Amino acid sequence: MPTFMDVHHGMTGVTAEQLGEAHQADLAIQADENVHFQHAWADPTSGSVFCLSDGPSREAVLRIHERTGHPADEIYEVPLEV
Amino acid sequence: MPTFMDVHHGMTGVTAEQLGEAHQADLAIQADENVHFQHAWADPTSGSVFCLSDGPSREAVLRIHERTGHPADEIYEVPLEV
Repeated sequence: MPTFMDVHHGMTGVTAEQLGEAHQADLAIQADENVHFQHAWADPTSGSVFCLSDGPSREAVLRIHERTGHPADEIYEVPLEV
Repeated sequence: MPTFMDVHHGMTGVTAEQLGEAHQADLAIQADENVHFQHAWADPTSGSVFCLSDGPSREAVLRIHERTGHPADEIYEVPLEV
């Protein structure tokens, strides 16, 4: 399945606990869309969060993030990796 | 050492070979700055490339990318990850 990198802005001050809770919320329902969130990285200073996932489509990934209350601002399919 | 996510724009049409060559060029000189590039993901359609690294500072990471001819457009220190 395709791999995706999505980006969230505006999460300034996000804590490790909040990031963990948001990620767990995604994991809890990701099977509904056959999505798998692999990893997330956050910069509390700029408020940027990057999430790596795989799934059937961009829309599927976005629906999970929307349902858990943290819609992504950008999403990119990343077919190349090294 | 801190972890960083940097973002390159404008790499529309980047191929797997080009991404591999760019990554290898970074790896070849990264020790000069005590930087370690871990992974890179590319979207040839939008031209976005995301690089995950660790190193002593943002400036150190940026210097490696600049010397290898692909300066990053954005760089974020990402102290939180899940």
